[in-house]
Amino acid sequence: TATHSAWAQAADASSVQIYGLLDAFVGSMKRSDEPGRTKLLGSGGMTTAYWGVRGSESLGGGLQAQFALESFFQTDSGTFGRNSTDPYFSRNAWVGLAGGFGQLSLGRQTNPMFVASGAFNPFGVSLQFSPVMLHTWQPTYNRAVLGDSVWSNAIQYTSPTFAGLRASLLYGMGEVQDREGIRNLNLALNYAAGPFAAVVSVQQAKTGPGFTATIGRQDAALIGASYDFKAVQLYGQLQRTRTPDIRTTADTAQLGAAVPVGAGRFLASVARTERKVTGSPGTQRTTWALGYDHFLSKRTDLYAVYMRDRLTGFSGSGSVGVGMRHRF
Amino acid sequence: TATHSAWAQAADASSVQIYGLLDAFVGSMKRSDEPGRTKLLGSGGMTTAYWGVRGSESLGGGLQAQFALESFFQTDSGTFGRNSTDPYFSRNAWVGLAGGFGQLSLGRQTNPMFVASGAFNPFGVSLQFSPVMLHTWQPTYNRAVLGDSVWSNAIQYTSPTFAGLRASLLYGMGEVQDREGIRNLNLALNYAAGPFAAVVSVQQAKTGPGFTATIGRQDAALIGASYDFKAVQLYGQLQRTRTPDIRTTADTAQLGAAVPVGAGRFLASVARTERKVTGSPGTQRTTWALGYDHFLSKRTDLYAVYMRDRLTGFSGSGSVGVGMRHRF
Amino acid sequence: TATHSAWAQAADASSVQIYGLLDAFVGSMKRSDEPGRTKLLGSGGMTTAYWGVRGSESLGGGLQAQFALESFFQTDSGTFGRNSTDPYFSRNAWVGLAGGFGQLSLGRQTNPMFVASGAFNPFGVSLQFSPVMLHTWQPTYNRAVLGDSVWSNAIQYTSPTFAGLRASLLYGMGEVQDREGIRNLNLALNYAAGPFAAVVSVQQAKTGPGFTATIGRQDAALIGASYDFKAVQLYGQLQRTRTPDIRTTADTAQLGAAVPVGAGRFLASVARTERKVTGSPGTQRTTWALGYDHFLSKRTDLYAVYMRDRLTGFSGSGSVGVGMRHRF
Repeated sequence: TATHSAWAQAADASSVQIYGLLDAFVGSMKRSDEPGRTKLLGSGGMTTAYWGVRGSESLGGGLQAQFALESFFQTDSGTFGRNSTDPYFSRNAWVGLAGGFGQLSLGRQTNPMFVASGAFNPFGVSLQFSPVMLHTWQPTYNRAVLGDSVWSNAIQYTSPTFAGLRASLLYGMGEVQDREGIRNLNLALNYAAGPFAAVVSVQQAKTGPGFTATIGRQDAALIGASYDFKAVQLYGQLQRTRTPDIRTTADTAQLGAAVPVGAGRFLASVARTERKVTGSPGTQRTTWALGYDHFLSKRTDLYAVYMRDRLTGFSGSGSVGVGMRHRF
Repeated sequence: TATHSAWAQAADASSVQIYGLLDAFVGSMKRSDEPGRTKLLGSGGMTTAYWGVRGSESLGGGLQAQFALESFFQTDSGTFGRNSTDPYFSRNAWVGLAGGFGQLSLGRQTNPMFVASGAFNPFGVSLQFSPVMLHTWQPTYNRAVLGDSVWSNAIQYTSPTFAGLRASLLYGMGEVQDREGIRNLNLALNYAAGPFAAVVSVQQAKTGPGFTATIGRQDAALIGASYDFKAVQLYGQLQRTRTPDIRTTADTAQLGAAVPVGAGRFLASVARTERKVTGSPGTQRTTWALGYDHFLSKRTDLYAVYMRDRLTGFSGSGSVGVGMRHRF
Repeated sequence: TATHSAWAQAADASSVQIYGLLDAFVGSMKRSDEPGRTKLLGSGGMTTAYWGVRGSESLGGGLQAQFALESFFQTDSGTFGRNSTDPYFSRNAWVGLAGGFGQLSLGRQTNPMFVASGAFNPFGVSLQFSPVMLHTWQPTYNRAVLGDSVWSNAIQYTSPTFAGLRASLLYGMGEVQDREGIRNLNLALNYAAGPFAAVVSVQQAKTGPGFTATIGRQDAALIGASYDFKAVQLYGQLQRTRTPDIRTTADTAQLGAAVPVGAGRFLASVARTERKVTGSPGTQRTTWALGYDHFLSKRTDLYAVYMRDRLTGFSGSGSVGVGMRHRF
C-alpha cells in the first residue's frame, strides 16, 4: 500500500552513493604547551573521519543537479562532528547545478583555503599530524585562520577548468538582522599542469567559530605549490592572517616532501608560525613530522608518524601515532 | 570472518531505499511583527529538507512489513532537525504492517492534519512561504495548532481506500506515570475522485511542543478541498482551534490557485487567521504569497516567491526568496 | 563536473551495506521500586533499535579491511542513542583487519560481556523484558556491571575459531593525561559444538558510565552455557561483580528455556541478583518473564511478554508488552 506520506515519493535512487572514511590510531600525544602526555586510541590520524550521501541527476544539455551531505564523526567514540559544537552534516550539506558554465552550489561548504592548505603539504588534511594544518586550523594549536574550515549559509561558484586554471568564489552570509555587512568571502585560483600544481586563496571572514564580540574580522591569504619529480614530490606554502581587532598578524610557512617507495610513501613536513601582537612580545611555533604511509590497496592504508612541536616559552615535545585508514 | 557481532546478521538489504530532499534559497525575510529584516541563505523554501531510509518486506498473502526512518535537516547549516529540540529521526520513525486490512504502524509519525494543511494549498508544506502553513505550524508565526506536526509514541491505523475514501486514526501516548488521559488523538478522512479531492481532519492534543503546565489541551478541526480545472487548480481550507486553558480560539481560512504554464506553475495563496481571546482584544493576521515554480525535471525545480505579511498592530512587510529544490 | 572536493573520491561502494532493526511495542510498565505505572508506546521491546553502515574490502591473501558504523535509536521518538548521553554511532564505530590471524579492530566496540549475557538467556539482548539483561545493564534496575555495554577508545583482538573455541581481548583506553592506568580490559572465551555453547568472560573496568570520583574500579566475571535439546533450549548464566570503592558485591544467576512451536518460540527466564554491601543490609531482586515470539518471516516477528519484578523492601509488580520487530 502507499497510504503513508513517506511512501508517496517514487525516487529514482540509482544515482545515490553512500561513502565515507574511517581512520583510527594508537598514539602518545603532547603539544609543546600541554602540561602532560596522553596515550590514546584516537580518530582521524591522517584524515578526519566522515560518512556521506551524494548524488547527481542529468537534466539534459550538459546540465546536472548535484548534492552532498557529509557528516564528520569520531572513529574512537562514535560521536558525530569534530567537536561538540559541530552540526550533524558538518563536512558538507549543499545542493547545486553544474554545467558548461561551471558549478553553482548553495548550503554548508568546505572552505577552499582549507582544501588548499591540505593539498600543498604531504600529510594532507590531517588535524592530528600535519604541522601546517595544526597551525592553521586546530583550535588547541591556536589556529591562525578563524571562521572554521567549513562555512554555513554559503553560495559558491566554481568556474570550468581552462588551460589548467580554475577559479572559485565562496560567499558566506552572516544572517544578522539588519547587518548585511557581516559575511565571509573567499577567492581561490587553482592551477595544475603535469607535475606542477599551485593555488592562491584569499579571504575576509567576519562570522563563524573564533569570531566574538571583540574579534570582528580577519583577512587571510595563502599561496601554495607542489612539483612531482617522480622520485620525490615537493610541497610548499605560505600564509598570512591579520586580525586587526586583536592587533595580531600570523605568518606561516610550510615545506614538505613525499618519497614513494613501493606501495608506500615516506612523508616529511615542517611548519613555522610567527605570531606578532602589536605592543606585546610575539611567539614562534615550529612543528615537524616524519611519517610512513603504506597502502594495502587504493582504499586502505596503514601509517606511522612522529611529530615534534615547540612553542616559544615551552620545551619541545614529541607525539607519535600508528594507525589505519579505510575509505568506502 | 564473522567474528564480530556486527557481522552476524545477514540482512537481505535489497528492498531498502535511501532518499531525501534538499532545498536552499537566497532570501530577504521580515515578518510583520519582526523589528528588522534578515538577508539569508535559507533552508526549505518550498519543502523542509530531509533524508531517510525506508523499506518493505513481503510476508506472503498480501501482507507486508514496512518501516521508515526520516531525519529533517537544514541545508544551509547541516544541522539535524527543524530546530534544536528535534530528535534525530524527527520526520518519521515507525514500523508496521500493511495488507488488505489497511496499515497499522507504531512509532513517531507525521500528523495527518499537517499533511492535510499542506495538501490543500498551492505552496505545499513550505514553512517559509506557504501562508497557511506559517499560520498553522510555525512557532514564530504564533502557530494555531499545538503539539507539533509529527507525533511521538504514536499508533496509526489507515484504512484501505474504498470508493475514493480513506480514513486514518492516529493515537499518541503521553507516557506520563499514572496519567493515561494525557494523549493525542487525530481522525482524518480523505476523499479523491478525478479532479476533486477533499479532507476532514479533527484532533484533540494534550502532549508535545506548545503544551505546558498551564496549557493542557487543544481541540482542532480542518476541512480542505481542491479542484483541478486543468487551466487552474483551486485550493481552499478552513481551520478552527480552541485552547480553553488560555481562552483562545483561532480561525484560519486559506484560498489558493496554481496555474500550470509549460514546465512551470504560477502559485498564489492567501491565509487569514482571526485569534480571539476571551476578555482581550483579538488579533488578525493576513499573509499572501505569489510564486513561480519551474521544473527542470521531475526531481529538480527552481522557484521564486514574494510574500507579504500583516499582523494587527504592526505594519505590513514583504519577504522574497529564490531557490532550488532537489529530490533524491 | 568534478570540481567539488566531495566529488574527488571515486569509491567502489559495492561492498557497503545499509542495515538495521526497528522494534516497537505497546506496554504497561512498572518496576518493583517505581512509584507508579506507565502505559507507553515503547522502543526495543526485544532488541534495542539501530541502523548502520558496514563494509569489507578484500586485500588479497585472505586479508580483509572491515568497518562498522551503527547508531542506536528509539523507534517511538526518533531520538538517536539509547539515552541522552550516547554518541551518534553508539552501537559500533570501528575499523580493522581480518585474516588467518583472526581480527584486529580499533574504535568504539560492543563489550563481549554484553554479547555473552545476551546470548545465554532466551530473551536475548532485550533491555525491556530480559530479566538478566535488566539486572546487568539497565541503569534504572541498578545495573550490576559498570562502564556501559559498548566501550569507546578500544582495541580488540579476536582469535580464529579452533576446535569450537574462540578467544577475544578488548582493551579500552581511558585517555586521561599522565594516567595510563585508567583503562578497561575484557577477556572472553567462547565455545560452540553442535547443540552446546558456552562462554567465560572476565573484565576489569575503570572508565565509562557509572564510574565517578568515588567509584574507580570494578571487577566482573560471567559464565554462561546453553544446550539445544530440539524440543527445548536451556540457558544458564552466573555473574559476579565486585566494586571495592563502594564495598559492593553483586551475584546474579539466570535460568531460561525456549520451546519452539511452529513458527514461534515460547520463552521463559528468571534472574536473581544478591547485592551485598559491607556494613549494610543487602538487597535481593528477582525478575521473571514469560513470552511468545512469533516469526512472520526470518526478518519480522511479533511478540508478547509478561514480566514480574520484585526488589527487597518493595512489593512485586508486573509489566506487559506486545510488539513488532523488523530487521532490514
